[in-house]
Amino acid sequence: MGARAAVAGASGYAGGELLRLLLDHPEIEIGALTANQNAGTRLGAHHPHLTPLADRELGETTPETLAGHDVVFLALPHGASAAVAERLGDDTLVVDCGADFRLADPAAWEAFYGGPHAGTWPYGLPELPGQREVLRATRRIAVPGCYPTAVTLALFPAFAAGLAEPDVVVVAASGTSGAGRSLKPHLLGSEVMGAVSAYNVGGVHRHTPEMEQNLSAVAGRPVTVSFTPTLAPMSRGILATCTAPAVPGVTAEALRAAYERAFADEPFLRLLPPGQWPSTAMTYGANTAAVQVALDERARRVIAVAAIDNLTKGTAGGAIQSANLALGLPEELGLPLNGVAP
Amino acid sequence: MGARAAVAGASGYAGGELLRLLLDHPEIEIGALTANQNAGTRLGAHHPHLTPLADRELGETTPETLAGHDVVFLALPHGASAAVAERLGDDTLVVDCGADFRLADPAAWEAFYGGPHAGTWPYGLPELPGQREVLRATRRIAVPGCYPTAVTLALFPAFAAGLAEPDVVVVAASGTSGAGRSLKPHLLGSEVMGAVSAYNVGGVHRHTPEMEQNLSAVAGRPVTVSFTPTLAPMSRGILATCTAPAVPGVTAEALRAAYERAFADEPFLRLLPPGQWPSTAMTYGANTAAVQVALDERARRVIAVAAIDNLTKGTAGGAIQSANLALGLPEELGLPLNGVAP
Amino acid sequence: MGARAAVAGASGYAGGELLRLLLDHPEIEIGALTANQNAGTRLGAHHPHLTPLADRELGETTPETLAGHDVVFLALPHGASAAVAERLGDDTLVVDCGADFRLADPAAWEAFYGGPHAGTWPYGLPELPGQREVLRATRRIAVPGCYPTAVTLALFPAFAAGLAEPDVVVVAASGTSGAGRSLKPHLLGSEVMGAVSAYNVGGVHRHTPEMEQNLSAVAGRPVTVSFTPTLAPMSRGILATCTAPAVPGVTAEALRAAYERAFADEPFLRLLPPGQWPSTAMTYGANTAAVQVALDERARRVIAVAAIDNLTKGTAGGAIQSANLALGLPEELGLPLNGVAP
Amino acid sequence: MGARAAVAGASGYAGGELLRLLLDHPEIEIGALTANQNAGTRLGAHHPHLTPLADRELGETTPETLAGHDVVFLALPHGASAAVAERLGDDTLVVDCGADFRLADPAAWEAFYGGPHAGTWPYGLPELPGQREVLRATRRIAVPGCYPTAVTLALFPAFAAGLAEPDVVVVAASGTSGAGRSLKPHLLGSEVMGAVSAYNVGGVHRHTPEMEQNLSAVAGRPVTVSFTPTLAPMSRGILATCTAPAVPGVTAEALRAAYERAFADEPFLRLLPPGQWPSTAMTYGANTAAVQVALDERARRVIAVAAIDNLTKGTAGGAIQSANLALGLPEELGLPLNGVAP
Repeated sequence: MGARAAVAGASGYAGGELLRLLLDHPEIEIGALTANQNAGTRLGAHHPHLTPLADRELGETTPETLAGHDVVFLALPHGASAAVAERLGDDTLVVDCGADFRLADPAAWEAFYGGPHAGTWPYGLPELPGQREVLRATRRIAVPGCYPTAVTLALFPAFAAGLAEPDVVVVAASGTSGAGRSLKPHLLGSEVMGAVSAYNVGGVHRHTPEMEQNLSAVAGRPVTVSFTPTLAPMSRGILATCTAPAVPGVTAEALRAAYERAFADEPFLRLLPPGQWPSTAMTYGANTAAVQVALDERARRVIAVAAIDNLTKGTAGGAIQSANLALGLPEELGLPLNGVAP
Repeated sequence: MGARAAVAGASGYAGGELLRLLLDHPEIEIGALTANQNAGTRLGAHHPHLTPLADRELGETTPETLAGHDVVFLALPHGASAAVAERLGDDTLVVDCGADFRLADPAAWEAFYGGPHAGTWPYGLPELPGQREVLRATRRIAVPGCYPTAVTLALFPAFAAGLAEPDVVVVAASGTSGAGRSLKPHLLGSEVMGAVSAYNVGGVHRHTPEMEQNLSAVAGRPVTVSFTPTLAPMSRGILATCTAPAVPGVTAEALRAAYERAFADEPFLRLLPPGQWPSTAMTYGANTAAVQVALDERARRVIAVAAIDNLTKGTAGGAIQSANLALGLPEELGLPLNGVAP
Repeated sequence: MGARAAVAGASGYAGGELLRLLLDHPEIEIGALTANQNAGTRLGAHHPHLTPLADRELGETTPETLAGHDVVFLALPHGASAAVAERLGDDTLVVDCGADFRLADPAAWEAFYGGPHAGTWPYGLPELPGQREVLRATRRIAVPGCYPTAVTLALFPAFAAGLAEPDVVVVAASGTSGAGRSLKPHLLGSEVMGAVSAYNVGGVHRHTPEMEQNLSAVAGRPVTVSFTPTLAPMSRGILATCTAPAVPGVTAEALRAAYERAFADEPFLRLLPPGQWPSTAMTYGANTAAVQVALDERARRVIAVAAIDNLTKGTAGGAIQSANLALGLPEELGLPLNGVAP
Repeated sequence: MGARAAVAGASGYAGGELLRLLLDHPEIEIGALTANQNAGTRLGAHHPHLTPLADRELGETTPETLAGHDVVFLALPHGASAAVAERLGDDTLVVDCGADFRLADPAAWEAFYGGPHAGTWPYGLPELPGQREVLRATRRIAVPGCYPTAVTLALFPAFAAGLAEPDVVVVAASGTSGAGRSLKPHLLGSEVMGAVSAYNVGGVHRHTPEMEQNLSAVAGRPVTVSFTPTLAPMSRGILATCTAPAVPGVTAEALRAAYERAFADEPFLRLLPPGQWPSTAMTYGANTAAVQVALDERARRVIAVAAIDNLTKGTAGGAIQSANLALGLPEELGLPLNGVAP
């Protein structure tokens, strides 16, 4: 085993998914598991699908329990990571699944999250140009948000190739695990089954500036995103429909060629064959993004659709993919390429 | 009983919903029920939820079986309505739930449906300006498509008040009953449960020109719609997220005021209080549309979201609402205002 | 309007269903709506599907707010009804949707619920022999539990006709609304979607003695029930599979004839035609029970399956059906016979 | 790679699950993929979740295409396996996921399946006493049915220890993938979502004699099973509630001890800790069975509940587990122990 990992926040959904993947990882061994309110309980009470860990007891999330590991994955509520990370040595690889260190612009942080900006860590999306090198050399990783992962992977080829105008409209559907394991009435099964609902409408969702940050970097100019999230009756999965005005003269062939080029060497990005459109069912439990793109000739818009599993590629899988790079391991190691269907 | 109604295509989902509503209609009596392949079978084999009609046998869809009724509701495959309607007398109110007579522009018909244009009937959306008078005086009604119903109701106040630019982007999620009872692999329960998928991407969905027709009429200038439909794991319901650039200077207050004005006297349109966003669960089985609107100040876009039940307000309820007008009955008669939840 | 009704516990699922049905009831007017923690909030925040009541504010559940109504429906947590009922006059019809007054045997109450037995009220299942007369003459009604409703309706004809031995095995699947609107982790959408789970296994579910009480009364001798409930990924509905050894010599014909006889004059009981089996989809939102019965010739067991909507016939619809009798109204008044499907 | 495998029936659900598991199997290489109606199409059109095989073309299911492999997995309609198997050499390991060779008793075959009995192959349930030795020495394996797998694993400890009477009542809920990818109206998403339904009631389901065969062998005397299957709104999973009268004098402690003993060395059987009950969510995508048992003291019945994934442990995983034994490989090789949740 090359590395020993602790998982803080092990009783939540992101924590559970990290453990599911780490159990199959050939070079990372599972060390301490910690929780907040659930400290002292068995993991099997929270994640009964993880047979080999069922009898492990959860410790408290303290610098002491997390110390002495090569990697520490943080799956904590927003705002809690900085204090923990400070106490871990600079040699420890710290991978934060929360939002605290994702944004480079303090003003954007304050506008969308409020309170002081904790700082900026290298952004854990290896598919962004030049990002693999950054991740290979860091001990701190900010794992992208689930929606920004889907939206960035859907649109970066169009912006990298200069085929889309920087006025993006995104509507995305997410499974309920994206909201975490919080006990809120609108997340009860009786409420979500059989219903799609909108929330955080009007450009107020906190993932919006992160999408703009990513796409602006690729485009080399400011990109504005109008983002509307919706909640769909499924546990996992994001389907992001991303549109932008096509640059005059763009053809469907040029658009497809740009995506083929951009995805050619990417292990986890999959451009579907013409005529096949993404479904979250293609990526359930997998670290893959399934993407398709079309040119709406009448409305002159680029329409790119991405499907990911919000807990895998959108959180825990993405975290391990970046951690693999930082640990000097093959990027794909231990990450499922195939989903579970039907 | 004021009127006797036949339902052609009674074994499908639209037919079943028509019957569910007509069973509670105080002034319409149910007459002949007909089908195509299912002629000769009991209705209870197809719609076991309709207790009083369980033992009714389905006749064949012919002019003879449909003759002698005051109203004939057609829930037939696209292309089949014209031949049937021609044989029904001019005195008979014919209400077509199919697409054949919705579009005014033959070129749009040919571009999206192919084949010759059957003609244009009065459009059964009473909420459009001036449309109630048209519907009170007709014996032929083209029931709107389910998606155009949701999109038109979401956006007409913004266009009527001149607050939105005519460059619309719509992404909508629909329950699977919108695809009818057709035996296609992608509609199997095993495929749709737990998954959201995109289809007809790139501006090719047939409901697109119908949306443009409605919004252009309201706006008084050509409106272009980029429309992407998605399939969600629920039986019923449409959630349409509709966005358009805000006209410069528009405020959130002006936007809300326009919607309050437009919805003030509408029996089936419901503007949610500020802060509450539509869910299809609000309209399950009801003839209501639940709408909310916001101004995305950063992206300067109007975001209007509408939830409807695709089979009720989106098809059968809308059909009966218009038929009520044509029959000289109160518009709301026999139509459920409240949904079934949770 | 013949009667004015208050609903205590209006923000929960049973309360919401009572209101949905009362809104369509021609002889009952909706009066005070009260809640516990949710007092002071708008009903629309909890039941946005009930359009006409959206702006009604919830009062506190006190004898004062509930006084002055002809009928008071109690949809309160177990144990809370007695104190409220005591303070309402003997002239007021009190209909308790909770368990407090269902059991006749104090020992059974203590064994399954613990604590002192509050008493016994007339049992609100009009389909039981002789029960309509009892209900017509009472001002206090104990509404049956949802599972006992399904199981009793499935099996009473077999026991009334002496065709089944008193050793019953029941396994039932319930939708999640049966657990109410309580914020428990296992009721989150992420947990319940895509999964069926068992709970309260081993004969410990509190509805067990109620099933035995009903079936023993019909059979005229003690009936034992082994009951296992399961939770299914749907909001509403109970499917109860009920089996008992067949009395020697019983034939399939005799069994069916007994059910036909028992159901002949029952407005809400529906024996499906041979070959069709119950689905909860047949009864969604309806006050109907769909029942089928078979004789397993090899295992010599009677297998009766009942589908109901746990919130309608299983709670609120059953409550109103009994209240209609007590108010001297037609039993079926205001109650939906047909479900909403698909 | 130790072995090369062909999969016949690769476009169906069982075929897809075989491929999902074989893609991760370190000692089995995927060879020919064949289909019936879907011959000539790409695998990616049917199983888009299997990224590396998306471009593989499906051949026809003929002895020629299947020849030359070490293992041939048959996932064919019932009745089709015998003809194919005959043409494959005795050296080829043939693993039949269909029912043709499961039953030892020709009379049971004829009573439940009709037509002539094709024969009997070694039964692929390694957990049955003595069965591992049989499977290590065979070139023909009959994979158990999904329901019999769940029921046998739930009850064999009770019968092996002589704690249960041979009069079993089983009610099981299955996800829709158990019915395969057949285009039948009752399997459409619109029909199955939000509904639980019964089918094949009255002791007529074809898996019944297989359950009796297994439990009788363990008990050493004839066991009768009354089996009622139900269809639940989920893609995968079986939850089987299995009850039998307790032998007089049996205690809860003795019962639990028998299960602990029986499961002690089983890699894929998991007895849950006291108080935790099986959910299909615990086994989604895993080759595990989660089991719990209780004694209903009042009704004097053993209640054992098992959850499995019908496509994994119930079909493809079970098939590979048995094939591992026949190929001389470690039994657990390539099989997922952990499920995907939530």
